[in-house]
Amino acid sequence: MTTMTTVSEAKAFGGTQGVYRHASTATGTDMTFAVFVPAHEAGERLPVLWYLSGLTCTHANVMDKGGYARACAEHRIMLVAPDTSPRGEGVADDPAWDMGQGAGFYVDATEAPWAPHFRMRTYIEDELPALVAAEFPVDMGAQAITGHSMGGHGALTIALRHPDRFRSCTAFAPIVAPSQVPWGEKALGGYLGQDRAAWRAHDAVAMIEDGARFPDLLVDQGEADNFLAEQLRPDLLATACADAGIDLTLRMQPGYDHSYHFISTFMADHVAWAAGRLRNTV
Amino acid sequence: MTTMTTVSEAKAFGGTQGVYRHASTATGTDMTFAVFVPAHEAGERLPVLWYLSGLTCTHANVMDKGGYARACAEHRIMLVAPDTSPRGEGVADDPAWDMGQGAGFYVDATEAPWAPHFRMRTYIEDELPALVAAEFPVDMGAQAITGHSMGGHGALTIALRHPDRFRSCTAFAPIVAPSQVPWGEKALGGYLGQDRAAWRAHDAVAMIEDGARFPDLLVDQGEADNFLAEQLRPDLLATACADAGIDLTLRMQPGYDHSYHFISTFMADHVAWAAGRLRNTV
Repeated sequence: MTTMTTVSEAKAFGGTQGVYRHASTATGTDMTFAVFVPAHEAGERLPVLWYLSGLTCTHANVMDKGGYARACAEHRIMLVAPDTSPRGEGVADDPAWDMGQGAGFYVDATEAPWAPHFRMRTYIEDELPALVAAEFPVDMGAQAITGHSMGGHGALTIALRHPDRFRSCTAFAPIVAPSQVPWGEKALGGYLGQDRAAWRAHDAVAMIEDGARFPDLLVDQGEADNFLAEQLRPDLLATACADAGIDLTLRMQPGYDHSYHFISTFMADHVAWAAGRLRNTV
Repeated sequence: MTTMTTVSEAKAFGGTQGVYRHASTATGTDMTFAVFVPAHEAGERLPVLWYLSGLTCTHANVMDKGGYARACAEHRIMLVAPDTSPRGEGVADDPAWDMGQGAGFYVDATEAPWAPHFRMRTYIEDELPALVAAEFPVDMGAQAITGHSMGGHGALTIALRHPDRFRSCTAFAPIVAPSQVPWGEKALGGYLGQDRAAWRAHDAVAMIEDGARFPDLLVDQGEADNFLAEQLRPDLLATACADAGIDLTLRMQPGYDHSYHFISTFMADHVAWAAGRLRNTV
């Protein structure tokens, strides 16, 4: 177990919004993450909602702009927001913003120059949950996951891989089929190599085609999102879910773009969706 | 009337969050401000809440972190968030963050080197309201004002100067008596000169002592605010209001600091306070 240090803590909506740092064995770098812990009774263990961020983001974007604290306080749910990649000197990077630092795509890279540090799957699926379980008042038997864009890809693929771990999965404007869109082709090709068969385990639509299941999904997608037609393609998820019998609630939201103005507008709905499944009230 | 250009617009909570820029005649610089316009009927004129920001801030801090859009959409109230000073090359500045660019203190400077551009009183009281009235679907007969820290000082002093213009005034951790605290002594001394008699028209406590009145005020103040004892001194406002018969609701909030975690927690209360007075429901 690595040692966690507190970067900052502030009271918010009756709870505590913190930022923490630890030396990750998965990535071989320091990693920073944000946690909101709502007000709770002594000894109480709280359900947890994981929020995975999109391209270029750190833990801070959703903490500053996501507007989750009111809803998480109301439903007494913890929220954990990890970073999107390893960072720092000695960590590989790409000149573009859609690969490398800030763009880990939640996979364990097998290819040079990424393999030494870009192990975000192991970090998000194994190492950080163990740290959170040890350091926070959390009920790891009650987990939900969500995310935005690249983080929506992360949420969908991780939930499909671990349907027994997560009781709820939602996404904001997710990349649903990275194997079929430019962002994903570049990232999965770079991190995992050019054998597209290896990509299917990191592509929500392909995972569903290959038999992965989740009880139900909520996806919000802005119709004015500049990335909708080329990169996000919720139609591909709708088809895959229909063919597989997965209960997908896909809400096309007129006028909304890809920004945190969109995310914050619908955040309370996603927290409520998670709360219903975490509290077994739906 | 200056020409306004749109920097950005995005749909949020059913309305539009915009950022706009114009060439200010008051400051002699380009000025940027944010406006949230909630969903409304064609031809409807909306009440407006002015939010004045604190030291170091621009229009963007409260737009990103303030969490007002949900409450403003619910109450159908516009929100305008101006910048805190003129900025740019050729504009005087101070090496510290508590004076100069980002720290205009909502006064018209009379002293060198500030006088040419630091005319934030005229900008906030006259020029920007005229622009907002011309460009947005606003009912200028229904205005409220609030602010944080230096912006709370701005909100209190402007409301006390114009009790017939504003139906509501609230503040988050305001500077209530700049003449009596280090931030204010530096800023008012620099902008207005060393004759302290000239400061009284820009000091909420002194204005109340000198006869200014407002029907009622709401102030939230975090008890864990590092600036509470030296710079903010809500006790001085409480005494002045008690002596003057002004109905002050001062809420000391245990555990909260000076950050936007504090502001966002209580933002909905301040919007509701304003809404009650703008809609004549309290």
